[in-house]
Amino acid sequence: MTDAIESRLIELGITLPETSAAVANYLPVARTGDLLFVSGQLPMADGRMAWTGRLGEALDIDQGRQAARLCAINMLAQLRAALDGELDRVARVVRLGGFVASAEDFTAQPQVINGASDLMVDVFGEAGRHARAAVGVNVLPLGAAVELEGLFEAP
Amino acid sequence: MTDAIESRLIELGITLPETSAAVANYLPVARTGDLLFVSGQLPMADGRMAWTGRLGEALDIDQGRQAARLCAINMLAQLRAALDGELDRVARVVRLGGFVASAEDFTAQPQVINGASDLMVDVFGEAGRHARAAVGVNVLPLGAAVELEGLFEAP
Amino acid sequence: MTDAIESRLIELGITLPETSAAVANYLPVARTGDLLFVSGQLPMADGRMAWTGRLGEALDIDQGRQAARLCAINMLAQLRAALDGELDRVARVVRLGGFVASAEDFTAQPQVINGASDLMVDVFGEAGRHARAAVGVNVLPLGAAVELEGLFEAP
Repeated sequence: MTDAIESRLIELGITLPETSAAVANYLPVARTGDLLFVSGQLPMADGRMAWTGRLGEALDIDQGRQAARLCAINMLAQLRAALDGELDRVARVVRLGGFVASAEDFTAQPQVINGASDLMVDVFGEAGRHARAAVGVNVLPLGAAVELEGLFEAP
Repeated sequence: MTDAIESRLIELGITLPETSAAVANYLPVARTGDLLFVSGQLPMADGRMAWTGRLGEALDIDQGRQAARLCAINMLAQLRAALDGELDRVARVVRLGGFVASAEDFTAQPQVINGASDLMVDVFGEAGRHARAAVGVNVLPLGAAVELEGLFEAP
Repeated sequence: MTDAIESRLIELGITLPETSAAVANYLPVARTGDLLFVSGQLPMADGRMAWTGRLGEALDIDQGRQAARLCAINMLAQLRAALDGELDRVARVVRLGGFVASAEDFTAQPQVINGASDLMVDVFGEAGRHARAAVGVNVLPLGAAVELEGLFEAP
């Protein structure tokens, strides 16, 4: 058993947050076969929404990218909990779905979601590369700037 | 062969609607391996759209929750038809994707989609818990208040 | 080895574009088992965005349908590249996800996405029929009128 991914997180200076129990009738992560579907993650930190408002209005691209990266970090925390603490069991990141709260004239959703895609490759290397959809929406839960869902393969 | 799920639907007072043949080049349900992908369901009842308009404008949270529940009921009807009438073959609900037609300041999409998540757990018990994404959008087909897509595991 | 799909593309008068290398940390196509997830495709042609603006404002339904068809053609190009040129290996189209940039009162997203669904059935026949979600959004990357993601089964 190696802990390559944990070592990599330390190198990157990333501390995954504690996860809390779900408060509704859905799960943070659901498994079918070797596939792990991760529920939509928001840019929360320390129990509060860290990035609210729409891109092109309240936030610029770089702030959006930080929001997407935070969603990805929260996703890894949920994934680690679902894998009994063993992120090394991740065989690959399969897909990310990124929703960006956007002013009507904001069209740089891909650059925003790169904040999540880049993190996955930073952490998992080549296995972190994934298929992706990035779209704009008018509003997200709790006023979040970004929502990110994910699909991972882990035996 | 048990009919536990049918009995449960009766207990809950839920009658699944008849399904109609698709009128376009897509399917209500597509299978790959043990996975069943269900097309986006709208809050239709008796052949008409039962819930139209945007949350935070035309509809409040409780109405949105009813719309999401109706989408979930229509989803179960499509799933039952795809499983030759045998909902007991469902091993688990894997994922729900919920789109909520939303005014720009409406941020309670999760509470709305709980109407669908709760129904799945009411019907399938623990196997009904699933991964989920809930997002806002500015408009949905036919002016629907909610659209719900689903992924189920059934051997 | 047959080339039935290539012959069919010729019959339909469709020339798939060359694909270019991804410029970010994501992939045009990601495989897990027999499933191929294709990243969100935009209505690009000859290196430029061919269809921009929102349905119900800048574009009408027929133009939207052409945009969706172009997304689907670009999807097949990516899929062919991922399958080493052998589209005949596609066992079925499993799911399409269609996002339509929409004015707030535009509710014909399904008719728009039919442009993609119809193409899949034109090319793959019965195996081209798929589950689908079609939703409206306020804005898409680079001002695109439509974004389409896909899931295919190919051993």
